[in-house]
Amino acid sequence: MRVGGVAYRTIWLAEDGRDVEIIDQTRLPHEFVTRTLSTLEDAARAIRSMQVRGAPLIGATAAYGVCLALRSDASDAALDAACDVLLATRPTAVNLRWALDEMRAALCSVAPPEREALAYARAAGIADEDVALCRAIGEHGAALIEAVVRDRGGSEPVNVLTHCNAGWLATVDWGTALAPIYAAHERGVPVHVWVDETRPRNQGASLTAWELQGHGVPYTVIADNSGGHLMCTGAVDLCITGSDRTTGHGDVCNKIGTYLKALAARDNGVPFYVALPYSTIDWSISDGLAQIPIEERDAREVSHIIGRSADGEMHEVAILPTGSPVANPAFDITPSRLVSGLITERGICPASREGLLGLYPERRGEADSPQNS
Amino acid sequence: MRVGGVAYRTIWLAEDGRDVEIIDQTRLPHEFVTRTLSTLEDAARAIRSMQVRGAPLIGATAAYGVCLALRSDASDAALDAACDVLLATRPTAVNLRWALDEMRAALCSVAPPEREALAYARAAGIADEDVALCRAIGEHGAALIEAVVRDRGGSEPVNVLTHCNAGWLATVDWGTALAPIYAAHERGVPVHVWVDETRPRNQGASLTAWELQGHGVPYTVIADNSGGHLMCTGAVDLCITGSDRTTGHGDVCNKIGTYLKALAARDNGVPFYVALPYSTIDWSISDGLAQIPIEERDAREVSHIIGRSADGEMHEVAILPTGSPVANPAFDITPSRLVSGLITERGICPASREGLLGLYPERRGEADSPQNS
Repeated sequence: MRVGGVAYRTIWLAEDGRDVEIIDQTRLPHEFVTRTLSTLEDAARAIRSMQVRGAPLIGATAAYGVCLALRSDASDAALDAACDVLLATRPTAVNLRWALDEMRAALCSVAPPEREALAYARAAGIADEDVALCRAIGEHGAALIEAVVRDRGGSEPVNVLTHCNAGWLATVDWGTALAPIYAAHERGVPVHVWVDETRPRNQGASLTAWELQGHGVPYTVIADNSGGHLMCTGAVDLCITGSDRTTGHGDVCNKIGTYLKALAARDNGVPFYVALPYSTIDWSISDGLAQIPIEERDAREVSHIIGRSADGEMHEVAILPTGSPVANPAFDITPSRLVSGLITERGICPASREGLLGLYPERRGEADSPQNS
Repeated sequence: MRVGGVAYRTIWLAEDGRDVEIIDQTRLPHEFVTRTLSTLEDAARAIRSMQVRGAPLIGATAAYGVCLALRSDASDAALDAACDVLLATRPTAVNLRWALDEMRAALCSVAPPEREALAYARAAGIADEDVALCRAIGEHGAALIEAVVRDRGGSEPVNVLTHCNAGWLATVDWGTALAPIYAAHERGVPVHVWVDETRPRNQGASLTAWELQGHGVPYTVIADNSGGHLMCTGAVDLCITGSDRTTGHGDVCNKIGTYLKALAARDNGVPFYVALPYSTIDWSISDGLAQIPIEERDAREVSHIIGRSADGEMHEVAILPTGSPVANPAFDITPSRLVSGLITERGICPASREGLLGLYPERRGEADSPQNS
């Protein structure tokens, strides 16, 4: 997507065709800084420090991290060591392990001298496949936004509410929840986005707002508390969020607070869609609330906030009384009954077992395994 | 309530019996600073700058502001001028006008030399009446908390979720939503409070957390997004919030985000109570969503946050991309169908016209006026 009129991905090759460039997302929204990764350690640090984040982007960065490692040593031992280093950066990221397995599978059967070139080709493939997935999600979802315009007529923008950042910054390009918005915008459909701030990490306020601003999509930032009121007053046509994990029955585990917006959407007759690639679907589980453990994150995310003060410097400030106890669950479960539909790369389906199996019939065996009965 | 083991109200007379002391709430939660008000202008500035806030406390401060004005000039003209100055500090505050009308009514019929003493007596009466109201709300509401312990047995604390600050800092003492919690705590009932941060003004994080900590009531601060998840997992026994305005049919206009918590409470079978004094009931309206205009506040409340940095200094930091559009509705409407009951100084009633008239039968004429049909 565009930043200041220039099209970017979140990760790309430098002019030499070997170094890797990324956007340092820890500087957003206050500064647009790109970083050059030249070594395995550079790539590992970028993931660890969250200069890159979002499951698909972490996977792509890890894939390129393998390429960087092989530049100095393409032996089996070096390949294994590189994968170990990269896997340890964010141990729970599913896409990270998947991307490293892909790289290792592609590389282990060829001789070391051929590995570097093959690694760059496979890493580019992983990145391009992610872009294609997200683009397909965007095309399918854009139809929902177009339908609002078609059904009600007029030239008023379609108001879409989103939570957290499931935009191009979390992927290689396009994003998941924001892909339908970008696709509609590209088609000339007037669209305006209500951006939830998304406390405590503020990914809406810092990342979603920044990327929409950069691409020229109209948006308005709101406190997480405001969405219910906006739905009551008819100011929201549609909600679209992402999903970190989706059960085989259509429950959605996403950023904390998603469930509250789904409740408000249901109470006000506002359609609530979730956009996701196949990789977030966990066919092995059926009941999100009972089966998905919720990560409890650092109290400091709630007790402190980082921002830019008038002198232009970044400051971290405390906002609680000293010594305040804090709870910080990072995700919540939106049950499938509150989800109007799932927007996937294969199309839109009901948030249910049969709905998902309609799009992914080849997964019926997994979905029917005994633990899902 | 207590601060560091010492009992305080939010407003009290200095040792000389004439100056007025307040807690500077703009310094909370980082510093406990009291201020001495010696003149009319001191009192007006304290209200205008929000060193004191909360409708009941604003009313009491205005009443004492009249006392301070009369110390230098007790003439009719000075009385009128003092009321004008004080009324202009927060033009929409209902209790401010009410308190000034009370003071003027008490003072205008006596000769100027007698006015100062009478003014101090009436101001003390206004403050004491507020304390009595809040204390009664606390006694009635504490029974709900005790009932949870009685019904389920055991010694686990009762978990109460609250939103914003409807505590003693917003009143003269005890508070409204927090009064039942303080009353239960005083009776030895184990209670723990989930404190919503309450973006964008953070009154939960800064004021509710501070006052519970000071009084020794166990609490945990959470992002506004977390309450739904906590209710899904059985971590909330009861919700209690305040109300800025209550319709004659039991709809509640309260701090933005209250509605989302009421939806989650309903979805999970968690009782959702609203605590309020009679003065917030607007018998002239029946439909909160249609009839209560929602104040849109300054964008800076969303785009910036004030806190204390590591050097101990207060800093305001920007958290949005420069130039981001912001919407900042300050309140939302929780429809009566989502409210389990209203906790008033006269007892607890259903959130309905008949429920309210059962406690306030003398208001039936107003509630039956043509515009409410």
